[in-house]
Amino acid sequence: MNVRSIEWIEEKATLRLLDQTQLPSHVVYVDLVGASEIAAAIRDMTVRGAPAIGVAAAYGIVAAAALSNERELAVVQSRLDRADEVLRASRPTAVNLFWALNRMKWVVDQIGVLKELLPALLEEARAIEAEDVRVNEAISEHAMSLVPDKATFFHHCNTGSLATVDRGTALGIIHTAHERGKTVMAYLDETRPRLQGAKLSAFELNAYGVPHAVVVDGASAHIMRTQQVDLCVVGCDRVAANGDTANKIGTYNLALAAKDNNVPFYVAAPSSTIDFSTANGDDIDIETRDEEEVTVIHGVSITPGGSSAFNPAFDVTPARLITAIVTEFGIAYPPFESSLAELLSNREESAA
Amino acid sequence: MNVRSIEWIEEKATLRLLDQTQLPSHVVYVDLVGASEIAAAIRDMTVRGAPAIGVAAAYGIVAAAALSNERELAVVQSRLDRADEVLRASRPTAVNLFWALNRMKWVVDQIGVLKELLPALLEEARAIEAEDVRVNEAISEHAMSLVPDKATFFHHCNTGSLATVDRGTALGIIHTAHERGKTVMAYLDETRPRLQGAKLSAFELNAYGVPHAVVVDGASAHIMRTQQVDLCVVGCDRVAANGDTANKIGTYNLALAAKDNNVPFYVAAPSSTIDFSTANGDDIDIETRDEEEVTVIHGVSITPGGSSAFNPAFDVTPARLITAIVTEFGIAYPPFESSLAELLSNREESAA
Repeated sequence: MNVRSIEWIEEKATLRLLDQTQLPSHVVYVDLVGASEIAAAIRDMTVRGAPAIGVAAAYGIVAAAALSNERELAVVQSRLDRADEVLRASRPTAVNLFWALNRMKWVVDQIGVLKELLPALLEEARAIEAEDVRVNEAISEHAMSLVPDKATFFHHCNTGSLATVDRGTALGIIHTAHERGKTVMAYLDETRPRLQGAKLSAFELNAYGVPHAVVVDGASAHIMRTQQVDLCVVGCDRVAANGDTANKIGTYNLALAAKDNNVPFYVAAPSSTIDFSTANGDDIDIETRDEEEVTVIHGVSITPGGSSAFNPAFDVTPARLITAIVTEFGIAYPPFESSLAELLSNREESAA
Repeated sequence: MNVRSIEWIEEKATLRLLDQTQLPSHVVYVDLVGASEIAAAIRDMTVRGAPAIGVAAAYGIVAAAALSNERELAVVQSRLDRADEVLRASRPTAVNLFWALNRMKWVVDQIGVLKELLPALLEEARAIEAEDVRVNEAISEHAMSLVPDKATFFHHCNTGSLATVDRGTALGIIHTAHERGKTVMAYLDETRPRLQGAKLSAFELNAYGVPHAVVVDGASAHIMRTQQVDLCVVGCDRVAANGDTANKIGTYNLALAAKDNNVPFYVAAPSSTIDFSTANGDDIDIETRDEEEVTVIHGVSITPGGSSAFNPAFDVTPARLITAIVTEFGIAYPPFESSLAELLSNREESAA
């Protein structure tokens, strides 16, 4: 995309983020200093999308190191441990956040010389950033075999360049299919409460020239019954070992709509979102966000005083509703316990 | 409820409607003159809800007759035919509209003396209005056997006093269970695009003192998986002979969420919404409304320029997802083809 959602500004030692809360009406960038500001931006969804959160958190550690002017390695390490804690607490569901922070922590633990620390952390964050683009390109490449030449997609939330460093995961598949000359149409559900489908995915598909229509979340089953949808593509925040998938609230409903209408349901999952230490979806911590995300739209309350709201930010789609999981190493089909493990062990062999 | 959504003001020959587009922030009444103003109020959803639309349309014929100052019966009848056409074209999906207009037309065709026409029409409209309350009370009464003493409901759209003359259908069941001393909690989905759940059902349950929480439409499956929901109750705009049910967009998704979590799914259906002339859901005309209902919230566009929206106002829930249909004559269980016909033939016998 022409807009860049995440950029490390080395000369200022700041992280520049495209403020996604102001899209599509305003394209505004914010420059953040230190881990606390970056953690706050993750929490308030200035930056969102599991892969983008991971990259932002990695730069959060770089930002903390850059701010530090202590002379002793142990003191700096302890400052970075505190930054790690603050960033780790920003959002609970997406596992990329923890995966990226674990990689940064590994670097902190490896480096024994203070002056080497900041360059090593910056190198690792840049590696995570660059890998994200390669991973997304590989996911799109593998997915092309699943997309007919004339394809009507249904897509949830935002999983595009804005949710990642570039290309995106599920929306990247739609974008790539369009670039390859397939005849593409995409239904984008608006994705209440934050409206990432209407605000962000529509913004991206407009920029790419991909035909699309925004629909309310409740319309998905009706649209699949009446409009010849060929496939659903969604992203994920965490995939458990058995294939149960945590993703933006509404994904489980969409998977049910697809199943009832025999529409294939594909999850685009960078391997960094696959968490073998979580056996199944019941073990995934689901973030509950502020009820005002539901009750107030554009500053106007939609509910009467006295009414409360319940606002779970994610749900878990059972593996039995998922046709396949597309990773950068290939496509996993059920049963996912074995197919995911096999795909990822191939990765480790090729890396060895 | 303390507020009355529909009232014929005889001395002015106007229909007073509570303007539901301004709730919950403003309680405003509008007085409408003639069939065209009433048809416009149905179209723009000043009044909505299948039963309320039927009653408003019946008064639309009364209003047309009251405006008429012609001296010849045939001329008045032809004016009323035009009023009937305008009202019939206001919204296509709810069958109560046509049912109520057919009753009024029958009166027009029966009356041979001009001066008897207006009183007869007023009497019929008042009968339709009064019947609505009795029908809703009977639906709630029958439904009590389905509601446990401690009941967590899930409810879609608004089906309360605002959608009817009083008591409501599905929301009436929740209200009645609360009045009878059952321990009631209700999840209300907000029901995009018009937000009738957040704006209207929450307004009513606040007024009745029923504990409730508003949730986004996409959260229903997650909530049923995690929050011990005992039953779903929804209204309907048209029930086909086989039990397929047209209702506000999002109902089909909700029924899928209920089915996947073994939560009973009940449709509250006045017999006026049951349409034996429609064999199944494929034959029901689904209204498509203006895309701005989706793309503009509180005057602010949520989509970028260049993005369009698709806005079907209703969907069809297949009969196989419905546990039972509760009518004023009792509860119908699958197969609905025979059970609905049997319930309604009992009605005809008792009326004979």
